[in-house]
Amino acid sequence: MPILKPYKLCSREVKSEDTVIDVKGVKIGRGHMVVMAGPCSVEGKDQLMETAKAVKAAGATILRGGAFKPRTSPYSFQGMEEEGLKLLKDVSEATGLPIVTEVMNPRDAELIHRYTDIMQIGARNVQNFSLLREVGKMEKPILLKRGLATTIEEWLMSSEYILSEGNNKVILCERGIRTFENATRNTLDLSAIPVVKEKSHLLIIIDPSHGVGYWQYVDSMSKAAVAAGADGLMIEVHWKPEEAFSDGPQSLKPHKFAKLMEELRPIAKAVGRSI
Amino acid sequence: MPILKPYKLCSREVKSEDTVIDVKGVKIGRGHMVVMAGPCSVEGKDQLMETAKAVKAAGATILRGGAFKPRTSPYSFQGMEEEGLKLLKDVSEATGLPIVTEVMNPRDAELIHRYTDIMQIGARNVQNFSLLREVGKMEKPILLKRGLATTIEEWLMSSEYILSEGNNKVILCERGIRTFENATRNTLDLSAIPVVKEKSHLLIIIDPSHGVGYWQYVDSMSKAAVAAGADGLMIEVHWKPEEAFSDGPQSLKPHKFAKLMEELRPIAKAVGRSI
Amino acid sequence: MPILKPYKLCSREVKSEDTVIDVKGVKIGRGHMVVMAGPCSVEGKDQLMETAKAVKAAGATILRGGAFKPRTSPYSFQGMEEEGLKLLKDVSEATGLPIVTEVMNPRDAELIHRYTDIMQIGARNVQNFSLLREVGKMEKPILLKRGLATTIEEWLMSSEYILSEGNNKVILCERGIRTFENATRNTLDLSAIPVVKEKSHLLIIIDPSHGVGYWQYVDSMSKAAVAAGADGLMIEVHWKPEEAFSDGPQSLKPHKFAKLMEELRPIAKAVGRSI
Amino acid sequence: MPILKPYKLCSREVKSEDTVIDVKGVKIGRGHMVVMAGPCSVEGKDQLMETAKAVKAAGATILRGGAFKPRTSPYSFQGMEEEGLKLLKDVSEATGLPIVTEVMNPRDAELIHRYTDIMQIGARNVQNFSLLREVGKMEKPILLKRGLATTIEEWLMSSEYILSEGNNKVILCERGIRTFENATRNTLDLSAIPVVKEKSHLLIIIDPSHGVGYWQYVDSMSKAAVAAGADGLMIEVHWKPEEAFSDGPQSLKPHKFAKLMEELRPIAKAVGRSI
Repeated sequence: MPILKPYKLCSREVKSEDTVIDVKGVKIGRGHMVVMAGPCSVEGKDQLMETAKAVKAAGATILRGGAFKPRTSPYSFQGMEEEGLKLLKDVSEATGLPIVTEVMNPRDAELIHRYTDIMQIGARNVQNFSLLREVGKMEKPILLKRGLATTIEEWLMSSEYILSEGNNKVILCERGIRTFENATRNTLDLSAIPVVKEKSHLLIIIDPSHGVGYWQYVDSMSKAAVAAGADGLMIEVHWKPEEAFSDGPQSLKPHKFAKLMEELRPIAKAVGRSI
Repeated sequence: MPILKPYKLCSREVKSEDTVIDVKGVKIGRGHMVVMAGPCSVEGKDQLMETAKAVKAAGATILRGGAFKPRTSPYSFQGMEEEGLKLLKDVSEATGLPIVTEVMNPRDAELIHRYTDIMQIGARNVQNFSLLREVGKMEKPILLKRGLATTIEEWLMSSEYILSEGNNKVILCERGIRTFENATRNTLDLSAIPVVKEKSHLLIIIDPSHGVGYWQYVDSMSKAAVAAGADGLMIEVHWKPEEAFSDGPQSLKPHKFAKLMEELRPIAKAVGRSI
Repeated sequence: MPILKPYKLCSREVKSEDTVIDVKGVKIGRGHMVVMAGPCSVEGKDQLMETAKAVKAAGATILRGGAFKPRTSPYSFQGMEEEGLKLLKDVSEATGLPIVTEVMNPRDAELIHRYTDIMQIGARNVQNFSLLREVGKMEKPILLKRGLATTIEEWLMSSEYILSEGNNKVILCERGIRTFENATRNTLDLSAIPVVKEKSHLLIIIDPSHGVGYWQYVDSMSKAAVAAGADGLMIEVHWKPEEAFSDGPQSLKPHKFAKLMEELRPIAKAVGRSI
Repeated sequence: MPILKPYKLCSREVKSEDTVIDVKGVKIGRGHMVVMAGPCSVEGKDQLMETAKAVKAAGATILRGGAFKPRTSPYSFQGMEEEGLKLLKDVSEATGLPIVTEVMNPRDAELIHRYTDIMQIGARNVQNFSLLREVGKMEKPILLKRGLATTIEEWLMSSEYILSEGNNKVILCERGIRTFENATRNTLDLSAIPVVKEKSHLLIIIDPSHGVGYWQYVDSMSKAAVAAGADGLMIEVHWKPEEAFSDGPQSLKPHKFAKLMEELRPIAKAVGRSI
């Protein structure tokens, strides 16, 4: 492996205290855990509004939803694009939930920045350096997912591309790495939490939905993430997972999500945090 | 991958309720978490006795220690062998802690069975089918570690080798799989907990020490394992990790272990379990 | 893993005969092997010109060289950018060698398309779908590297993004996948050759330099690739590897490259091909 | 990863010239390539005899066949055991082909040593150190397969267990490592050839059948192995692959094997070797 230059802006040596980010009044970090929830894809106004209300009632404080979707096949549903962004904005205003949505193309960054509160860089773009530089010049927080084969060292180096352009509001998101195991969609690497916390002041949240790929295991891994010291969770929730345009098998129904939120609170308390 | 015959004896279909094992009065399963702790290798009487007393005082209920050590190099310390077994027995009697130790050779199985309370099959022997059959004919519980590249399906099939010989006291132990990430020694696959619990009635515990390879991360992963629903933990503890004959970097000092045990209790309680 | 829609345009079912591509008179496919060689990065006029002459003399028919470099760290050398493109063009005109160089940003695609003969999509961008669509609208051939954790199925699906936009001149390039092994930089998956040839009519070449990461092993893997049925090779060559701005350890010196070319010819002949 | 003591007996520093092994007159090493071929499992006398004659006629010089079979499930066919050994012996005497067969249990080592000419240690037992020591005390050559998650460094260290007991006739066999790719059963790591050749004087052969898992790809990878400098091949051949007790999908029919042998000869010649 090439020897990398040492980390700079993301490192504890440059900034020892933990980063805290405020997203329209939602504080993330130093004991304040965030739960981002919502559908994989924005599919329509009713779907989004009902899901948003349900996840808010259960305690989620950020709404997630994809408008531009990175899909393995060009023949799969590619997202509602700008129409999806508008729906996200409408639902955000109606519910008061800030939103997070993905940007894939540097050319769309401006557009998405206008609509969203947090910009997500997906796993496939973790080393799309042109895109990282682009969002690094913007103001809103960046959720940077780890890639399927990205070492923690490389992931932190990708955050440097954003930080070095001036945007210091980076939230790392572990979402599973690719291994030989196929009982789960990916292998959720929860040890990334203590490793990142040791080396960096950046926030780190966990996406158990992509990590395991089956809703049955999301519950257990969400609890583990909270106990391990994550700064938050990102969870896929859908009213009718069997009809979802994407990632149905890993989406929780709203009542299961609500039950999970109940069960997470005492664990968070046990590790000195609040959800 | 070859299509396997369906699981039989380890499966929920054959036996729906969770397995419970009693090791000299120490109950494991259905809410009773076990903590097995001690040094990687048995190195001498004082080392073992002092460590045993310390881990017992902190709340561990089983003593671990290797007498026959599987080492990558034939030129590394290979364990104290039978002398080590005797020390384990002595310390067990003095402290009242049952012991767990590894068996590597079918020819030594009888010998080790005489001394120990739980027989451990190490990661490298998870598909040593001759050894699995051998311990399957014995009475004492078997701790079956997952191999570095063993799928959960294969691991459960290895348990079938033991169960089909008549020994139904199998404890699975996840201890990290091998991936591309090298910030940790292995990648601890905590999602194995819900996957195993769904498919099997067998107990599953977590070895975070081997999973991460550095003591700094053991704390976080132990908490995660408890929250995720593991039936127990196996943790390496050493008085002077820097002088340990093996695995020093991943061993906790006794006072750190004691602090961890304190912190684990409220998490266990939050998920309806006791340590 | 998500169930993908079946391949369309890349598949043997749609087009049974092998693809052949003509790059300024250099035929690739159906027995005509191509060797693309040159430095990892364009570093200056003399370096490039001397290397180009040397690789041409040895039998290479395409010149490689990076002007826009994807680097893990933002603090590493990022390439000479447009100045580098101009040097490539000059050297191409002087030597008659067509060139291949990487495009990373959709916004730069037009610029690079003006200068180069083949556009390379690097491993990190194999699922940068915006970029794939962009180059899919262009005329020149696309060299599509496999990602570090990309399955062959996903890689072929990425080629569909290009093909479905109208550009049917895709050359796949295997350059190693990421595994646990660290004696080599990556693990070169030569079995990708027969797998791709079975499923697809597209060309596939091998980049042993990135695959193994050390010049000592490039020789052996180049021979293996030819014998296995690859349509070509991409090899890094540098006059002074110890002073290279990037990837020095995996670069061959010109005289070693010339010797390798000599040794490849009888192997190519033995499998009914010519270099 | 633990820092290992340096290699001793397997290293080039201790013995610079390549090892050569003579198996009943079959020379392996220094230009003499060996082809070991035969069925995965010994299934009966006729099957074995006919296959042996066919592979001999095609040019194979060692007969392979499993009598003790390591199977993931205890409910799968486990081999004909001693009866299988007898059949191997009979067929060996009738055809003049020396044989190679697997040993799994230290207790069976004596028995198998009596019947076979080369003792095989399978991938699952590459770090079964008790077994390695056992065969290290014996006289016949040992074929040591690489494990699914064994680094080359660990593999060489396993060879040290054999060498340090006095048996210096070790043949390493690469048979694929476990990765995320599932178009092939395993990922055949042909770069192990130059890496092993650089560090060690031991012989290394390739098992493309297990490496790829489908007969369609065995041809291409066999050619690649020869070109890359392997000292030999181990190939599964079966008269009726669709009826094989194990590994049918990766077995070549005799006429395909014969055709492959024809095609390998000019490649071997091109790299200065003979088959």
